[in-house]
Amino acid sequence: MTTAPIFADPESIPRVKAVFDDIRTTRKTEYVNNFWRALAFDPALLESTWAEVKRIMAAPSLLDPLTKELVYIAVSAANSCTYCVHSHTAAARAKGMTEAQHAELLAIIALAAKTNHLVNGLQVEVDPVYDTSAPR
Amino acid sequence: MTTAPIFADPESIPRVKAVFDDIRTTRKTEYVNNFWRALAFDPALLESTWAEVKRIMAAPSLLDPLTKELVYIAVSAANSCTYCVHSHTAAARAKGMTEAQHAELLAIIALAAKTNHLVNGLQVEVDPVYDTSAPR
Amino acid sequence: MTTAPIFADPESIPRVKAVFDDIRTTRKTEYVNNFWRALAFDPALLESTWAEVKRIMAAPSLLDPLTKELVYIAVSAANSCTYCVHSHTAAARAKGMTEAQHAELLAIIALAAKTNHLVNGLQVEVDPVYDTSAPR
Amino acid sequence: MTTAPIFADPESIPRVKAVFDDIRTTRKTEYVNNFWRALAFDPALLESTWAEVKRIMAAPSLLDPLTKELVYIAVSAANSCTYCVHSHTAAARAKGMTEAQHAELLAIIALAAKTNHLVNGLQVEVDPVYDTSAPR
Amino acid sequence: MTTAPIFADPESIPRVKAVFDDIRTTRKTEYVNNFWRALAFDPALLESTWAEVKRIMAAPSLLDPLTKELVYIAVSAANSCTYCVHSHTAAARAKGMTEAQHAELLAIIALAAKTNHLVNGLQVEVDPVYDTSAPR
Amino acid sequence: MTTAPIFADPESIPRVKAVFDDIRTTRKTEYVNNFWRALAFDPALLESTWAEVKRIMAAPSLLDPLTKELVYIAVSAANSCTYCVHSHTAAARAKGMTEAQHAELLAIIALAAKTNHLVNGLQVEVDPVYDTSAPR
Repeated sequence: MTTAPIFADPESIPRVKAVFDDIRTTRKTEYVNNFWRALAFDPALLESTWAEVKRIMAAPSLLDPLTKELVYIAVSAANSCTYCVHSHTAAARAKGMTEAQHAELLAIIALAAKTNHLVNGLQVEVDPVYDTSAPR
Repeated sequence: MTTAPIFADPESIPRVKAVFDDIRTTRKTEYVNNFWRALAFDPALLESTWAEVKRIMAAPSLLDPLTKELVYIAVSAANSCTYCVHSHTAAARAKGMTEAQHAELLAIIALAAKTNHLVNGLQVEVDPVYDTSAPR
Repeated sequence: MTTAPIFADPESIPRVKAVFDDIRTTRKTEYVNNFWRALAFDPALLESTWAEVKRIMAAPSLLDPLTKELVYIAVSAANSCTYCVHSHTAAARAKGMTEAQHAELLAIIALAAKTNHLVNGLQVEVDPVYDTSAPR
Repeated sequence: MTTAPIFADPESIPRVKAVFDDIRTTRKTEYVNNFWRALAFDPALLESTWAEVKRIMAAPSLLDPLTKELVYIAVSAANSCTYCVHSHTAAARAKGMTEAQHAELLAIIALAAKTNHLVNGLQVEVDPVYDTSAPR
Repeated sequence: MTTAPIFADPESIPRVKAVFDDIRTTRKTEYVNNFWRALAFDPALLESTWAEVKRIMAAPSLLDPLTKELVYIAVSAANSCTYCVHSHTAAARAKGMTEAQHAELLAIIALAAKTNHLVNGLQVEVDPVYDTSAPR
Repeated sequence: MTTAPIFADPESIPRVKAVFDDIRTTRKTEYVNNFWRALAFDPALLESTWAEVKRIMAAPSLLDPLTKELVYIAVSAANSCTYCVHSHTAAARAKGMTEAQHAELLAIIALAAKTNHLVNGLQVEVDPVYDTSAPR
């Protein structure tokens, strides 16, 4: 169950239909996943969220598409977002992630969490050599 | 300040010196950062942690070294680990991350956090099509 | 499934019945939600938790009842607490939250999470002008 | 120290100056806080982030300006973002938050965190009555 | 810097002095740490928080005093609360935690974080055998 | 549903069978829980994870077995890991945790989360007396 109403026919709302059509065209699939259907209860929130996801995740950029999905999975696992882990793992698979790469990704995420908690428990001080923020 | 004692001369302990030497050799640098110095109060914890970091982060693997650091930064930012963000941002730079790539990474991390919180607020249900766990 | 036993007839325990009755009176509803039923396995924990919720959330105070629920939803989404998001979204609706306000709340929570992660990734230093803690 | 370079004269970059000027005009203050100065290393990230903050936080909307800041503080405290807590507490004060309201806000955030962790420890099941997502 | 004012002479306020005196008596030390000094800006919040800490952490109970501090450190590290990790590590030391026990605690916290993130990444389903919540 | 394939007969893979057999021997039970079955998709990840869990949680050490499980539950609740809370609550019960101890554990976890969020909201500064990290 979601906390907002799910419309039986969200595409009867023109602004929602326009976003769903763009999702289908951009992703080259007929399937529009539940996240977008859930956001349809507020067309403005749907539009702005899709615009940002499209700009950052779907447009050509400096990082390759698979790397971007791996980073997305990492943040989602750390934030305990079940839906996000599922949807971005599926997206990473669609972009070529193999099972062996998935296992390696999980090992890195788990290691990072482990050392994050060690550092938080030890309260290690930041090394001055890491400072690259000197005014230019 | 850390929560465990920092030894003035950690390398006087043979097990600590062996790990520090391996860190220097593996990373091709004389510098041993504070995380390892903080762990030196317990040689067994230092040894097992370095062994895992070396195996997962330093050994050749399916994911390239820079991608692994980007994932590490992502988890660390999500877990609010200041030290970890600093040390792995420095590591990513050393492995070739440009400022433009850093900006893109931050934009992806921020977007993932945004949609994680939208999903947590909406409690979106997982699409059945994401199920790839059927027994084989 | 919960991690503690759920009693078939929790109100057969006088201390539990007293709390449940006070919940019904305070909230003007016959319904006692699962959180309180789960806490019934330990009457002391049930009593102290309800006393605090009643004092902070149900009593008249400086912040209006709806604002308090919005803050509660925000913390619960950030902490990935599914039950808490559901129960406090229902409470906010009962106190007058419209769908448009819900959408705006979600947009603020998502934006805050986005900038939280940008700041954690950038490690921005606190501006000295924010210091209002000078001894009085 | 930040993880990205801080420019000594960020406003020598026209795109950065345009955003800073808009921040000053929108907020009616000469002061541009460190978050925006840190984002200046990537004008595109600065522009898109400010555009979203301006649209959601600075424009008139359904929730009043102070309520929006209280929600922002709540998310930031839950996400352990030191800078964000400081900057939005200052913003809430500028919008009229009294010390007594601040204390009440903190009590609500703390109570929410407490019950979030109780629920996570107990794994309470969501009450079916909370389901308002039936298709319309 | 804190986000609330710190009083130069908090004990000039009778309600604050009463709590500080009880902290000193209960803990058998003249030192009142900064957490309580920060809470002094709101005597009611100070009183209710100390009452709960005293009841749960200082009173004799089923779990021994050191175990309670270890659990407190664990939650604080997971929630990235720097102050809390420092203050409760000091408290654990005062209650007899040795350096070797501290190292073991950190190893357990780190391992739990590691498997938490593995599980979040894998989305492992809960085993039905764990269900002990059947109505009684 | 998990994000990795679940093998119908994981023990047909010798490396997986060896780990499962060791789990059964170490824990003196025929039951191998879903976490290990989910990790079976990558024998190397399964082996290294079990080796660490066995070394830290199953071997005799300075902290008693029940205390270790309480700490594990605490981290898992703070990290919102549903599976981990369930599996380690079951493990704690198997090691003797009573319902009254469980209730007290939950009260401590909840109190720690409450003060964590109060501290994050107040940004309390660490007391210098907590510094025990002076070089030795």
